[in-house]
Amino acid sequence: MGLFTKDISSMSDLFVHQLKDIYYAEKRIVNSLPKMIEKAKSPELRKGLTHHLGETKNHVSRLEQVFQMVGVQPDAVTCPAIDGILKEADEVAGDVADTKVLDAALIAAAQAVEHYEMTRYGTLIAWAKELGRKDCAQVLQQTLEEERAADSKLTQLAEGGINRRAA
Amino acid sequence: MGLFTKDISSMSDLFVHQLKDIYYAEKRIVNSLPKMIEKAKSPELRKGLTHHLGETKNHVSRLEQVFQMVGVQPDAVTCPAIDGILKEADEVAGDVADTKVLDAALIAAAQAVEHYEMTRYGTLIAWAKELGRKDCAQVLQQTLEEERAADSKLTQLAEGGINRRAA
Repeated sequence: MGLFTKDISSMSDLFVHQLKDIYYAEKRIVNSLPKMIEKAKSPELRKGLTHHLGETKNHVSRLEQVFQMVGVQPDAVTCPAIDGILKEADEVAGDVADTKVLDAALIAAAQAVEHYEMTRYGTLIAWAKELGRKDCAQVLQQTLEEERAADSKLTQLAEGGINRRAA
Repeated sequence: MGLFTKDISSMSDLFVHQLKDIYYAEKRIVNSLPKMIEKAKSPELRKGLTHHLGETKNHVSRLEQVFQMVGVQPDAVTCPAIDGILKEADEVAGDVADTKVLDAALIAAAQAVEHYEMTRYGTLIAWAKELGRKDCAQVLQQTLEEERAADSKLTQLAEGGINRRAA
């Protein structure tokens, strides 16, 4: 967007732009999670990531619902942030020789993804409220709560033994 | 790292790798914040970002202290995640025509940066503790608390009027 023009002239435009950005991000996460699940050694970690893959597919559907609510065709704009976060996850995973250390690295990578989503959904919810769209905010809030729960679950897994076995 | 070899074979290696990653990120943020401050319209936002620039320079110094504590030369490894987050911040800022909307976009961008740092410091602290380096964890904890405070301050600014003026 906007190489020669400034496409965002209102908060509504900014909201829709951010919606397209996180729509791209969620779709990329749906594609990336199976590779992380395959690499994970700990059964609890595999189970947790598999559960979150199901949730992530729902997040894509919820975003499509929000696009419909605001009367915009669902569309994705390239999100360099998630591209960078996932690239880094791949690179680090490729550098790790020990499988137990790999699980610790995978948790860190997954938490970086969760934190990116948490900040974006937090922003989208605040903007939706300012724009008088509490209905959109409510749909997005459900996803935010699932991202937070996924992040807490990853912390529990790390502190509950995966880091210890790796150290 | 690791195009042909697997360089990370222990939790200590992973810890040092992550330390180099966030060291690169903090240095890039030191370079990027002045541009964000220049673009910001709201005096409170400029003040908040300027204060955080000072803190970020301290975070670089604290990381150098942790490198010294673990006996490793301070070094940066390219962090595609922060590169992506900052690239996206630049792109969105370049797309916004209205200055009040720009402030809302800048806050969102700065919060994405904060969230990235929060997840990385959270991970580093957990790993430092597992490695028996509570001394390193304590130094990193100070930075984590400043990142969290900066994020909360940005939320206050957004909800305290910047989003409303933009909507």
